[in-house]
Amino acid sequence: MSTKDKIITTSIMLFNQHGERAVTTNHIASHMGISPGNLYYHFKNKEDIIRHIFALYSKHLHTQFVPMEKQDEALTHLTGYLDALFELMWRFHFFYDNLGDILSRDDVLKKDYIEFQEALLSQVREIVIGLREGGMIAIDDEDTVELAHVLKITVSFWTPYIKARRLSGELMQQDIYNGILKVLALFKAFGTEQSIPRINLLREKYSKLAAQAEPV
Amino acid sequence: MSTKDKIITTSIMLFNQHGERAVTTNHIASHMGISPGNLYYHFKNKEDIIRHIFALYSKHLHTQFVPMEKQDEALTHLTGYLDALFELMWRFHFFYDNLGDILSRDDVLKKDYIEFQEALLSQVREIVIGLREGGMIAIDDEDTVELAHVLKITVSFWTPYIKARRLSGELMQQDIYNGILKVLALFKAFGTEQSIPRINLLREKYSKLAAQAEPV
Repeated sequence: MSTKDKIITTSIMLFNQHGERAVTTNHIASHMGISPGNLYYHFKNKEDIIRHIFALYSKHLHTQFVPMEKQDEALTHLTGYLDALFELMWRFHFFYDNLGDILSRDDVLKKDYIEFQEALLSQVREIVIGLREGGMIAIDDEDTVELAHVLKITVSFWTPYIKARRLSGELMQQDIYNGILKVLALFKAFGTEQSIPRINLLREKYSKLAAQAEPV
Repeated sequence: MSTKDKIITTSIMLFNQHGERAVTTNHIASHMGISPGNLYYHFKNKEDIIRHIFALYSKHLHTQFVPMEKQDEALTHLTGYLDALFELMWRFHFFYDNLGDILSRDDVLKKDYIEFQEALLSQVREIVIGLREGGMIAIDDEDTVELAHVLKITVSFWTPYIKARRLSGELMQQDIYNGILKVLALFKAFGTEQSIPRINLLREKYSKLAAQAEPV
């Protein structure tokens, strides 16, 4: 791994652990055993590191949204998405802990974030429409965008929601399964006769996984 | 209004406007034209002010959750709740902008917050069950708690969600109507033959109000 990549990986770890606000470039360099000068050779400042992390996060998120090929496999695809999505939110959870703060400090990042969110909303909506075309959900046209927004909010703010409900403020990787259960409950609300038994099976699977996490 | 109350009101306004992080007790005192000593006579520090604001917010939120009396009026009650809830989230929006940060600095506040969230979850679930008993929604028992969580996340993080999607980062009071539309779409997903036409009427009402806000 290059020094540049190591700086990114170390920053993500420290931001998640201590909160982005508490971690300086000096902490990052010292944790890696490199000089601040070496860090500044690769990144201008902390904002520069965060921009690179956001680009990484966007790229990962983007590659998850491959279009569905077979409609009848829509639900299988869905759980693939959900696993990857929540895992991603967990891996970069510092970002949504301090979203407003981070965005208000960097206009370039904010612009990128807004564009990315727009594209994401369309992609989530396409998944919703894909599920409808596959007969997995029944939903009016005007509700597809509303559902897409609620799904985005639930996925994005799942980690800060859990952290705020826990005295330790700590997040476990297993917490993502409780988040997936919320999304499944949403899809079940729009579910069809054909899909509800399958959604219930998925719920059983994730309930077992979620049982390994602290209750929420 | 007493000086103590004025300090609270001014703090809420400044926190919402500039973000809690950027506002010090000196800013608050200077904005009111009082000495820092006078402010410290009423509050020990900024955390003390925030605790008082949280108590105010909790009290307001609590008084909104009066039990429903007549089941057939469940939907009318619901929009009363939603109006009041989102208005409250708007009035105290700085809190959810920096939730993790604010809670991590004050263990007493965090404990209060967690207890309050537990009580709130039960109350939201009771409303969901009330709507079911009134024939307004059809929902399985196990889904009531999932829906309550999703409703809480949507309402709580609505204001930071909107702010993050806007280059100015500014929030308008009309933005709450777009949030109410998301909640109505959720209830519609669980709606019954009897309630869906009424939910659609409510949606029309709030769509008109939301049209006054910037699109999201």
